[in-house]
Amino acid sequence: MTLPISFLSDFGRDDEFVGVVHGVIARIAPDVRVIDVGHEFVQGDIRAGGLALMRAIQYLPQGVAVVVIDPGVGTQRRAIAIETDWGVFIGPDNGVLAPAVAMSGGAHRVFAIENPEVKLPAPGATFDGRDLFGPAAAVIASGQARIDELGPEIDTDALTPMMLPLVEHGEQSVTGEVLWVDHFGNAQLNVTPEDLQLVGIGMGTAIVLKIASAEFAIDWVTAYGGVEEGEGLLHVDSYGQIAVAVRNGRAVDSYPVDTGTAVTLRAGTPSLQITGG
Amino acid sequence: MTLPISFLSDFGRDDEFVGVVHGVIARIAPDVRVIDVGHEFVQGDIRAGGLALMRAIQYLPQGVAVVVIDPGVGTQRRAIAIETDWGVFIGPDNGVLAPAVAMSGGAHRVFAIENPEVKLPAPGATFDGRDLFGPAAAVIASGQARIDELGPEIDTDALTPMMLPLVEHGEQSVTGEVLWVDHFGNAQLNVTPEDLQLVGIGMGTAIVLKIASAEFAIDWVTAYGGVEEGEGLLHVDSYGQIAVAVRNGRAVDSYPVDTGTAVTLRAGTPSLQITGG
Amino acid sequence: MTLPISFLSDFGRDDEFVGVVHGVIARIAPDVRVIDVGHEFVQGDIRAGGLALMRAIQYLPQGVAVVVIDPGVGTQRRAIAIETDWGVFIGPDNGVLAPAVAMSGGAHRVFAIENPEVKLPAPGATFDGRDLFGPAAAVIASGQARIDELGPEIDTDALTPMMLPLVEHGEQSVTGEVLWVDHFGNAQLNVTPEDLQLVGIGMGTAIVLKIASAEFAIDWVTAYGGVEEGEGLLHVDSYGQIAVAVRNGRAVDSYPVDTGTAVTLRAGTPSLQITGG
Repeated sequence: MTLPISFLSDFGRDDEFVGVVHGVIARIAPDVRVIDVGHEFVQGDIRAGGLALMRAIQYLPQGVAVVVIDPGVGTQRRAIAIETDWGVFIGPDNGVLAPAVAMSGGAHRVFAIENPEVKLPAPGATFDGRDLFGPAAAVIASGQARIDELGPEIDTDALTPMMLPLVEHGEQSVTGEVLWVDHFGNAQLNVTPEDLQLVGIGMGTAIVLKIASAEFAIDWVTAYGGVEEGEGLLHVDSYGQIAVAVRNGRAVDSYPVDTGTAVTLRAGTPSLQITGG
Repeated sequence: MTLPISFLSDFGRDDEFVGVVHGVIARIAPDVRVIDVGHEFVQGDIRAGGLALMRAIQYLPQGVAVVVIDPGVGTQRRAIAIETDWGVFIGPDNGVLAPAVAMSGGAHRVFAIENPEVKLPAPGATFDGRDLFGPAAAVIASGQARIDELGPEIDTDALTPMMLPLVEHGEQSVTGEVLWVDHFGNAQLNVTPEDLQLVGIGMGTAIVLKIASAEFAIDWVTAYGGVEEGEGLLHVDSYGQIAVAVRNGRAVDSYPVDTGTAVTLRAGTPSLQITGG
Repeated sequence: MTLPISFLSDFGRDDEFVGVVHGVIARIAPDVRVIDVGHEFVQGDIRAGGLALMRAIQYLPQGVAVVVIDPGVGTQRRAIAIETDWGVFIGPDNGVLAPAVAMSGGAHRVFAIENPEVKLPAPGATFDGRDLFGPAAAVIASGQARIDELGPEIDTDALTPMMLPLVEHGEQSVTGEVLWVDHFGNAQLNVTPEDLQLVGIGMGTAIVLKIASAEFAIDWVTAYGGVEEGEGLLHVDSYGQIAVAVRNGRAVDSYPVDTGTAVTLRAGTPSLQITGG
């Protein structure tokens, strides 16, 4: 029996990189299915790729996940395989696997991928997606190797973590940041509904969204249909986080937000803005 | 026996949305194959996605088509499954399925997708591609449910149609519009060869292409090889429609056309254009 | 037994073209797997697509490769199928298959694809990926036809070649050009390590990279870790060619290089550059 492989990278689609990794897996393990989780993450953006895998993981078929966002390729960073309840995570030890591993209940065992039999020979620099991570995923998914045959075991505490921003709770306010701007221009915050409820903000509350010195009145609604077309809203998004959205529009066009932007949500109405003279 | 699923959306490739829908289908129906018809349609562009599916449908393996171009997500628009000679079409009831359903001989039966067993639980807003349309496609394609188990039957006449522009026939002229500009810059019109023949325009006719107040002499040829490199042409494209193209070039760079642009084709030569003074 | 198909084109992903070819193959040969090598090559860029297939071929599962970069569609250029040690290559006879065929040990036999039973009927112009190349790949991969049933045999010497730039060896210098700029901004040269060794340039040598009149001191290292972050380097890339790269950066942002740019590598230090006055 084979396991499916879920594959995420920052390879883009303009070269043959993604196809070559599919090819390598198919040569080693012809019956293994590969699901492309996404390959257009910004080059080297460990946080973006790690959060995407975290959001996706509960929807991906249990098996093997291979992630190649690897700005440290060609340095001493380790290649690792992590055993979890979900399955096996394979990638560089730079934190990119950490959120999805945590979401899967944490690492049971971790191994460095160092077995020379796993690695394809390369004429020069290693293209680790092709020469190391892809082959490792293929031998695990097809049952040709056990995870403990990939290399020496590593202490789970020695893994590189991913640092995520924390929410600050104030007096009737919550300050967080934008975790992710999606394809539709929605801005997902690191704020949860519970964070808002803790400071007394609910669905009926008058809310101010503060971004730098700008303040916007905004409603927390259950669905886009709760506001007029073109109007902004807060809602609990499909991942359970508070997100800023615009009905039939793009939040990033209506509000000065991007990934990493600090935002404050507080009960009340916007301050008087004297703009004339 | 399982049926293949053809999947079309406006999700783009920059997030994990497409991969997550593949994952959901693989979890429910591991043996079902999914063909990506396209995911880079302009956000919410019902017409572009609906026409693409219509052009594609006769080339896709019979089974299930799931389409998620859904600007009305989060409102009261219905989720539907349509039974046709080709197979089952699944998506929002906003017209996006209509052209392909018509091309497949029309709807036999239609059901609203409301069975709570089909829908994945979501922590907040529904991501309907992931939580509703993907699962519905998976259970139909794998035979785990019949279409009449998805929800209540709907009158086929109650479906939202897609309005497509009509061609106007004049005295030795036809006025239509650009339906589609493809990746290669070709402009497909809503005009058919029969429309031109009806007003006496054939392959040997001197033809004027009129766009707003600009007029261009253009030849109707059977293939790109019928004109010189860089020269414009009319031809019957691979879908049977009249299209404006440029040999080894892009029609949209040589003519002021875009999707929706009105164009007139008439027999004759361009009017004298006095440009000096 | 079926063979996998590897599929490369310049179709882009904004239309349904790639999906339609997948669909056509699935209708003819439902059990054949299709690997997407890449579809975002510049429209009509035979060299880029041909080199990508050459780089990829040894990593793709043996079977059928179908390539549709075809600026001559609609002219008299032939459609061909080439038998090699790797498998069967299918595409237009414009040179795009030549590098991968050479890499696979050369053509054993070549056939023009002219059998009318292979070709799908089209209402107007032929979309050859859909109507000819896709079906030909499907019947070969599924064993429904032998290569010699596709059409008449052609002399292997009659195939259109791809002309690739040659390296010039000077006195302690090598002049070549940029073959490929990849997604990460690395510039692969047509220069090999052997070219440099022939003129006495090795890993410890002080090297000048000359581009037009600009000269840069650069080190040849084994891996990115051999220089500081943001610093440029020469290395043997994962395909065995000399490439210009920048650690955690993009070579194309640090050096005035693009595909086709002429570059000279010589032993020594940059000439004195008088820039003031």
